[in-house]
Amino acid sequence: MIISTTQIPKNIRYQIRNNEITTHTSELAPGYVQANVVILPKNAAFDFLLFCQRNPKPCPVLEVLDVGSYFTNYTADKADLRYDVPKYRLYEYGEIQEETNNLEKHWKKDFVTFLLGCSFTFDSALISAGIEIRNVAEGKNIPMFVTNIPTSPAGIFSGPTVVSMRPIPKDKIVRAVQVTSRFPGVHGSPIQIGDSEKIGIKDVFKPDFGDPTDILADEVPVFWACGVTPQAVAMEAKLPFMITHSPGHMFVTDLKDEDLAII
Amino acid sequence: MIISTTQIPKNIRYQIRNNEITTHTSELAPGYVQANVVILPKNAAFDFLLFCQRNPKPCPVLEVLDVGSYFTNYTADKADLRYDVPKYRLYEYGEIQEETNNLEKHWKKDFVTFLLGCSFTFDSALISAGIEIRNVAEGKNIPMFVTNIPTSPAGIFSGPTVVSMRPIPKDKIVRAVQVTSRFPGVHGSPIQIGDSEKIGIKDVFKPDFGDPTDILADEVPVFWACGVTPQAVAMEAKLPFMITHSPGHMFVTDLKDEDLAII
Repeated sequence: MIISTTQIPKNIRYQIRNNEITTHTSELAPGYVQANVVILPKNAAFDFLLFCQRNPKPCPVLEVLDVGSYFTNYTADKADLRYDVPKYRLYEYGEIQEETNNLEKHWKKDFVTFLLGCSFTFDSALISAGIEIRNVAEGKNIPMFVTNIPTSPAGIFSGPTVVSMRPIPKDKIVRAVQVTSRFPGVHGSPIQIGDSEKIGIKDVFKPDFGDPTDILADEVPVFWACGVTPQAVAMEAKLPFMITHSPGHMFVTDLKDEDLAII
Repeated sequence: MIISTTQIPKNIRYQIRNNEITTHTSELAPGYVQANVVILPKNAAFDFLLFCQRNPKPCPVLEVLDVGSYFTNYTADKADLRYDVPKYRLYEYGEIQEETNNLEKHWKKDFVTFLLGCSFTFDSALISAGIEIRNVAEGKNIPMFVTNIPTSPAGIFSGPTVVSMRPIPKDKIVRAVQVTSRFPGVHGSPIQIGDSEKIGIKDVFKPDFGDPTDILADEVPVFWACGVTPQAVAMEAKLPFMITHSPGHMFVTDLKDEDLAII
């Protein structure tokens, strides 16, 4: 795949920083990893990192910045997390207060920034393996469900696992398991195949978040742990102050999808 | 493999707790995962967990206990970390003060206990794949070297990567890479094959820790990240107080080796 220079992550981040890109990032920098963003005060950071360690499927950690730092070291070369995300959400006690396109006025010395794996990488790998991702093909958001599977709590953080659902043709389930097992850094293998009731989903056509999706006669619903889980859990903890990216407006890293493959 | 009831981890931990077992654990509970132990005060725990997150090859986290808790939840069913390790080392400002067989007198409410993967699992998998592990066959300790490969620092923790060396026959290197790649929870794939000088090792027959090992004509030295790294880094941080297991006297978990295999 030949990538035009305007699709190089560094250039995209530069345009985001200068407000030349303010949209969601799903079509940008194909082949590069995008990340969920959670920014918390230091006094909640150990609990949140421990929550991620105990729940690696919904909360795969790509990078945690040093306390107070807004510069990345591992996922991107000196990106600035105050500016390099197209839209941020600011919360107080679990309630959204505002959306903003930079954190210049809001940054505090005790902030700790978490970058977590996002399923865009995942979907690319499935599509490359010849498995259509329905919501991508239809240009819709993926259907997501709150399950009855508890996360492993850590300190102030606890709550149910949120999953995303992709309808997979029966004869491609094995391949879908194989392909996604290679990417534990972006949720890894499925956590349920075919039995939505078993994980507490009453109606597979009525998602809690995102858009509903048809399931054809030769398909079964397959469920993967979802990056909404850590955000939901962080909101539920009702911290005095917290920041996340705005849904779909991700942080574009320098990592290539294949960099996250385990073998 | 049939395991006698005396070799079940729970029973071994019971004997350790009652001082009926006070020796090193290398021959005990074959097929079950053993863990390195590091116990630190809460004010250093975020930095240490972040250090492990940034350096997963030398520091694979199996479980972190809740602040102040001595009971495991994930790696073993309610083991008690005050008693269930045969020998502990107590450090002040990076210097060993004493060895003890329980922490009853020493436990503090702000302790955070880290259990990290150990290469015993690893060696079993290699041996099962028909690859002789020289030091195991000879009943010696594995040779370990301080390299010129820096770890990724986190807060107060930094230092060089320590590696272990196993001589591998040239025609079994591919298999050794494959087998160990399945176990990122116990250091994963090698970090260097054959070129000891490249990673700053002057004399491959003079290890910094452990015992020297012959390298036969058809073999090359293969290097894996080593669990001594986090201990060395934690000692170097010269914390006012820290506890580890005594070398070879590991925590025996309920996890089976295969539970740590990624695929």
